[in-house]
Amino acid sequence: MNYDQIFDSAIERLHSEGRYRVFIDILRNKGAYPNARCFAGHNGPKPITVWCSNDYLAMGQHPKVIAAMEEALHNVGAGSGGTRNIGGNTHYHIQLEEELADLHGKESALLFTSGYVSNDATLSTLAKILPGCVIFSDELNHASMIAGIRNSGAEKKVFRHNDVEHLEQLLAETDPELPKLIAFESVYSMDGDIAPIHAICDLADKYNALTYIDEVHAVGMYGARGGGVSEREDAAKRITIIEGTLGKAFGVMGGYIAADAKIIDVIRSYAPGFIFTTSLSPVLVAGVLASVRHLKQSSAERDGQQAAAALLKKLFADAGLPVMDTVTHIVPLMVGDPVKAKRISDILLAEYGVYVQPINFPTVPRGTERLRFTPGPSHTEEMMRDLTAALVEIWDRLELKLAA
Amino acid sequence: MNYDQIFDSAIERLHSEGRYRVFIDILRNKGAYPNARCFAGHNGPKPITVWCSNDYLAMGQHPKVIAAMEEALHNVGAGSGGTRNIGGNTHYHIQLEEELADLHGKESALLFTSGYVSNDATLSTLAKILPGCVIFSDELNHASMIAGIRNSGAEKKVFRHNDVEHLEQLLAETDPELPKLIAFESVYSMDGDIAPIHAICDLADKYNALTYIDEVHAVGMYGARGGGVSEREDAAKRITIIEGTLGKAFGVMGGYIAADAKIIDVIRSYAPGFIFTTSLSPVLVAGVLASVRHLKQSSAERDGQQAAAALLKKLFADAGLPVMDTVTHIVPLMVGDPVKAKRISDILLAEYGVYVQPINFPTVPRGTERLRFTPGPSHTEEMMRDLTAALVEIWDRLELKLAA
Ligand SMILES: Cc1ncc(COP(=O)(O)O)c(C=O)c1O
Ligand SMILES: Cc1ncc(COP(=O)(O)O)c(C=O)c1O
Repeated sequence: MNYDQIFDSAIERLHSEGRYRVFIDILRNKGAYPNARCFAGHNGPKPITVWCSNDYLAMGQHPKVIAAMEEALHNVGAGSGGTRNIGGNTHYHIQLEEELADLHGKESALLFTSGYVSNDATLSTLAKILPGCVIFSDELNHASMIAGIRNSGAEKKVFRHNDVEHLEQLLAETDPELPKLIAFESVYSMDGDIAPIHAICDLADKYNALTYIDEVHAVGMYGARGGGVSEREDAAKRITIIEGTLGKAFGVMGGYIAADAKIIDVIRSYAPGFIFTTSLSPVLVAGVLASVRHLKQSSAERDGQQAAAALLKKLFADAGLPVMDTVTHIVPLMVGDPVKAKRISDILLAEYGVYVQPINFPTVPRGTERLRFTPGPSHTEEMMRDLTAALVEIWDRLELKLAA
Repeated sequence: MNYDQIFDSAIERLHSEGRYRVFIDILRNKGAYPNARCFAGHNGPKPITVWCSNDYLAMGQHPKVIAAMEEALHNVGAGSGGTRNIGGNTHYHIQLEEELADLHGKESALLFTSGYVSNDATLSTLAKILPGCVIFSDELNHASMIAGIRNSGAEKKVFRHNDVEHLEQLLAETDPELPKLIAFESVYSMDGDIAPIHAICDLADKYNALTYIDEVHAVGMYGARGGGVSEREDAAKRITIIEGTLGKAFGVMGGYIAADAKIIDVIRSYAPGFIFTTSLSPVLVAGVLASVRHLKQSSAERDGQQAAAALLKKLFADAGLPVMDTVTHIVPLMVGDPVKAKRISDILLAEYGVYVQPINFPTVPRGTERLRFTPGPSHTEEMMRDLTAALVEIWDRLELKLAA
C-alpha cells in the first residue's frame, strides 16, 4: 500500500485535465466594491475589478450591516462559544430565525453554519425520518443537495433539468404509499434559468409529495421583500421547505431553512449537522439581521442588479460574444474548454485587472466550461464597456468562436 | 401517507424520553465573561453565570481578537462573497492556513466553515480517494467523524474506547494490502480523558495505517504553543492529519486540518464540503489569526484554565458530589438520568442564576446523562464556591446520590 502514489495520481489527474485549481489571493476594498486588491505573483497588491462575486447586491459592505456587526462584536464578543443547545444560542439567533420565517411566510426557520450544511443536514435527516422515502432530484441540483440525498441513503430518482413531464413520469411509476420529496432549485446559478415552481407544486399535490426548494441564488434578489422566486411567483406557501444562504445576496455567511414549525422542530431535534457544531458567530448573525431587514423594505439594490445584468448581456451580445441568454442576474459566457477558459481568465487578470474565475468540472458538466459574470448595482456602465472591449480583444487574439 | 403523523411521533419520542431540547436564550457580556444575560421566561434579561461554554479561554472577548475583527470588518467587509475558488479566497485565509500549518509543524493546512465540516468532508473524501480503505474508529468518536466515515461508504471497524489492544486485534485481522486509517480524538470532551497517542501511532507504523486525530477540545489549550495534546506529547509529526476547531479555545468559528502539502492538496481539490460553499467570513478569519498568534506565545490562559479546573474538581469532590475524575480541563458531574439532569439545570438557572446545560443522549450514551462544567481563567474562586454550595443544596433537595 503506497499512499503517496495514490495521492500523486489523484492530483495528476486534475493537471492532465487542465482543471487543477489555483486560488487567487485577493482582498476586497470595503466601500469600494467591486474594486479589490490582488496579491499573488505581483510586487505588492495590484488593483482589480471583481466580476464573479456572489455578494450580489454588495450588502457585504452596506453601512447598516457593518454597523450591526461592529455593535454585536462589542456587545457579546467574537464567537458563540457553543452549539445551539449547549451555550451557543443567542438572542440574535432567535431574532434572525423569526425574521427569516417572516420573510418566507412560514411558521419557523432554522439557522445552519452554511447553505451547504443546511441542504446536506436537512435532506439527509428528512429522508431518514420518513421510512422508505423516495427523493426526486433535478439533474442540475447543487453538490450540497446531492450530498444530503446521498447521505440519507434514500432511493433517488433524477429528473431531467426543469422537465415536469419527466418528473411526472417518475412520480407516477412510484408506489403511491411511499413518502416522496421533490428537491429542486429556483435559480440555477451556472445557467441562470428558473424552475417551473407552480408546475412542480401541482405535481406534488397530485402525487402527495413534499417539496424542497433551494433559493440560494434568489433570496434577497427576487420578490418584493427579497423572499426569492417563490415570493415573486406567490408560491412560497405551496412549498414545504424553503432553503437559503446568508452568504450571497445577504452578504455575510450561513444558511437556513424555513417551514412549518413541526418540520423545523424535527430537523432541529434530529439533524447531526445542526446539533453537533458551534453555532454561527453572533457577529455574523447580527449582520445578517440588518441585511435581511434592509432588503425587505428596499428594492433599489434588486433594481440596480437587474439593470446591470440587462446592460451587460446587451453589450456582450452586441459585440458578438457567446453570452448565454438568461432570465436572471447571471451572465455566463460559454467557452466549452477548461484550458481556454483558464487562459482567458488569466489574461483578464494579468493585462486588464479584471477578475472572473473560469468555471469548470465538476461545477459544470465537462465541455460546458464557461466564464460567469455577476454584475451588480455597483458595477458601472464604464466598467462594463471596458470589460466588453477586453473580451473582444482576447476572443480575437485566441481566435475563439463568436456567437452564431 | 400521512406526513404530519410521522413528524408528530418523531417529536413525541423525544418528549417521552425526557430529552426534548429547549434552547436557552442568552447574550454574553463582552469583557465580563462568564457573566451573561438570559432572556426567555423572565421579565427582561436576567444576569447569569455561564458554566458550560466552549469558549474555554475566553478568547472570544480578548481585546486583540476584537480589534482584529473590527479592523477586517472595516477593511474588507462582512462576508467573503464566494467559495475559495470563486472569489472567496482572501489574503486572511492564506495567512491563517500558514499560521495553522506552523502551529502543528505541518507543511499545509486547510480551512473549513466548521470543525464539523472539516471532519465530515476530510474523512469522507480521504476514504473515497483510497480504494478499499478500512477505517478504524474509536467508539466514542464525535458525531462529525461518524458522519464523515459513514458518508465515505468505507468499511468501518469500531474499537473500544482508547483500547489499543482491541485496535491491534482489528488491524491484525485486516488484509495488509488494504489502505487503513485510524480515526480518534485527543481529548474526549464529555469524559475529559485523553487518547494514548504514541501507542496508536506505534500500531499505525506497524500496520502501515494513516492516522487522523481530532484535537477540537485541545488546540489552544495543550502544548507550549497551543498545538494540542499532540504537541505536548511531541507526537504531531507522527500523525498524518490533525484536525481542529476555531470555535472553542480560539473563541471564534470555523475548522481546519493540517497535514503534508500533498494530502491538503487532495482534500482541497476533491472534497465537495470544502469546494462548494462560501468560505469563512474574512472577519472571522482575522479574529482567529489574532487568537492563534496570541496563544502561541502566551501560556497564561492555559495555566489559568488548568488551575480553575483543578480547584473546581477539588471543591466538588470535597463536597461529596459525584464528579468524574478527569486529566483535563473538563469537569463532568454524573447524574445518570435525563429528567433529573434537566431538573438540576432548571433549578440552577431559575434560583441561582447558574447556566449549565444537561448533557443527554445522543451526545452521551443513555444512562450516563450528566452536567458538564468548563471552568476557565475567568471563573473566580468565589463563583466556584457559590456553585458548589448551590449543587450541594439541590443534591440534598432532590435526594440525589453523593459520591461513593
Ligand atoms: C445552489 C446552491 N446551494 C447551496 C450552496 C451552498 O451555500 P453556502 O455557500 O452558503 O454554503 C451554493 C453555493 O455555495 C449553491 O450554489
Ligand atoms: C470532538 C469534536 N469534534 C468536532 C466538533 C465540531 O466542531 P465545530 O463546533 O467547530 O463544528 C465538536 C463540537 O462541536 C467536537 O466536540
